[in-house]
Amino acid sequence: MTDAQSLRIVLIGAGNLATNLGLALTASGYNVVQVYSRTAASAGALAERLDCDFTDGIDKIRDDADLYFVAIKDSALEVLSEVLTGINPNALWVHTAGSMPIDVFACCRRGVFYPMQTFSKRETVDFRSIPVFLETAVADDMDILRSIADDLSDKVYELGSDDRKLLHLSAVFCCNFVNHCCTMAADILSDKNIPFDVMLPLIDRTVEKLHTFTPLEAQTGPAVRYDENVIGMQMSLLNHRPDLQHIYELMSKSIHKYKIKGKKEE
Amino acid sequence: MTDAQSLRIVLIGAGNLATNLGLALTASGYNVVQVYSRTAASAGALAERLDCDFTDGIDKIRDDADLYFVAIKDSALEVLSEVLTGINPNALWVHTAGSMPIDVFACCRRGVFYPMQTFSKRETVDFRSIPVFLETAVADDMDILRSIADDLSDKVYELGSDDRKLLHLSAVFCCNFVNHCCTMAADILSDKNIPFDVMLPLIDRTVEKLHTFTPLEAQTGPAVRYDENVIGMQMSLLNHRPDLQHIYELMSKSIHKYKIKGKKEE
Repeated sequence: MTDAQSLRIVLIGAGNLATNLGLALTASGYNVVQVYSRTAASAGALAERLDCDFTDGIDKIRDDADLYFVAIKDSALEVLSEVLTGINPNALWVHTAGSMPIDVFACCRRGVFYPMQTFSKRETVDFRSIPVFLETAVADDMDILRSIADDLSDKVYELGSDDRKLLHLSAVFCCNFVNHCCTMAADILSDKNIPFDVMLPLIDRTVEKLHTFTPLEAQTGPAVRYDENVIGMQMSLLNHRPDLQHIYELMSKSIHKYKIKGKKEE
Repeated sequence: MTDAQSLRIVLIGAGNLATNLGLALTASGYNVVQVYSRTAASAGALAERLDCDFTDGIDKIRDDADLYFVAIKDSALEVLSEVLTGINPNALWVHTAGSMPIDVFACCRRGVFYPMQTFSKRETVDFRSIPVFLETAVADDMDILRSIADDLSDKVYELGSDDRKLLHLSAVFCCNFVNHCCTMAADILSDKNIPFDVMLPLIDRTVEKLHTFTPLEAQTGPAVRYDENVIGMQMSLLNHRPDLQHIYELMSKSIHKYKIKGKKEE
C-alpha cells in the first residue's frame, strides 16, 4: 500500500464522471470512504458499487477525510465550494472540472484532477488511456495527486487553469460538437427512415484517419474546394430546417477558409 | 470467373475514390483494362497499381469496354458526362457520386455505385465494411452492379437519387463536419502549443459510444443543460476568432434545442 492509498477519500457527486472515477480509484486499491449526492438514490447506487457509506445531506459529509474529490456540475461547484471546504478546511479539496479555475476553492490545499473524457454511468471506461490534467496550489499536494493519477492513467500532465480552459474548450469541439454533427445527420436520415447505423463505418474511418493525418490534411468533401453546385443543392435540402442550414453554411465556409489558410502556410 | 468478372472495365478518374475502387476491383478479380485521368502522372500511377493501360486524352478512352466507372469530381462529371457516354453509348455508364442524380448521364444504360466512405490514395481501406448504394435505369444492369458490389462489400443497398442526396448530406455532417470540429480544436490548442494528439482518446470514445447509444442519448457537456456560465466563458475565449465563436454559439444552441425536443418526445 502506498501513502496515497492509505488516504481516506470522500467523493462529492455520483454522476457520470464521479462514477467512473470512484470505480477507477477502488479498482486501484484506494480507500473511498463515503459518497455524497443530492439524492440518496444516486449516492446509494454508487456507494454500493464502491462498497462504502453514502449520504444525501451536506451536513453529514465526513469531516475526517484526507482528500475530497468534488465531481459535480460547474454551476453547483461555484455555489457549494465554500460550504464544502468549510467541512474540513485543512484537507485537500480537488475538483474535476475542465473549465473551472483552481481558485473556485478558497482553502489553502486546493487542486484540480481533470480526466479529459466523456463518461457515462452505464458504460465504464478504461481509465489508463484517459489523459489526466493536474493542478495544485501547494507543491506537496501535486505529489499526492500525481501518485494517484499515475496509478489510474498512463497519461498524466500538469496544466494551469488558463491552459486547462482552452483544453476544455477544445474538448467541447472534439466531443460535444462532433457528437452533435452526428445528431443532426441522424435527424436528416430520419426523414427517409434510413437507420443512423449506416453512417458508422464512415464515422469510424473519419476518426481513424486522425491517428495518421492532421484534421486539416484529412479533410475531404464539397466544402474543401467550395463546390458551389453541391453546396447550393445541399443547402436547399435543408430549407425546412433553418437551424441546420445555418450551421451547414457556416461550417462549409469555415472548412474552405482553413483550407486556403493551410495552403498559404505550406 | 463470374460473368461480371469477365467485363472489360474502364476507370475514369484516378483520385482518392477511383484509387480505392480500382484496387478493390482488381483484388476481387475484376478486369480493369484502362485508367483515364486529366494528368498522365496520376493516371499512370494508378494504372501501375492496377497493372493496366492508361491515358490522359479523352479521345483515347477505349470504346470497346463493357462498363465505365466515372469517379471524378461532381463539377467535372456534369461537364463531361455527354462527351464520355458518347464514346460508347451502348455500354453501362456508372458514376460514384453521392449527391449527383443518375440522370447526369443521358445514355440508356446508366447507373450509380456510391461507396459511402472517406478515401485517400495514401491509405487504402477495407472495402468489405463500406456501405455501397446502387441505382440503375435498367433492371438487368442492377444485377450486374449488385454482383460486383456483393463481391466488394458486405453492405449493399439499392437507393434512388433523391434518397441518396439526403444520405450524402448526412455524410457531410458525419465526416466533413466532424473532421472540421477537430480542425477547429487543433487550432485552439495551437495557441498553447498543446499537441492535438492529446484529444484522440476523447474523440475515439465519443465515436465508440455511437455504436451503443443514439447521438442524442450520447450527448454530454455544457450545452446540453445550457450552462450559461461555462458557455459565456468559452464564448469569451473565442473573442479573437469570431468565425469559431459564431459556430460555437450556433452549435451550443442547437444541442440544447435537440435535448429539449428529445425530452418532449420521451
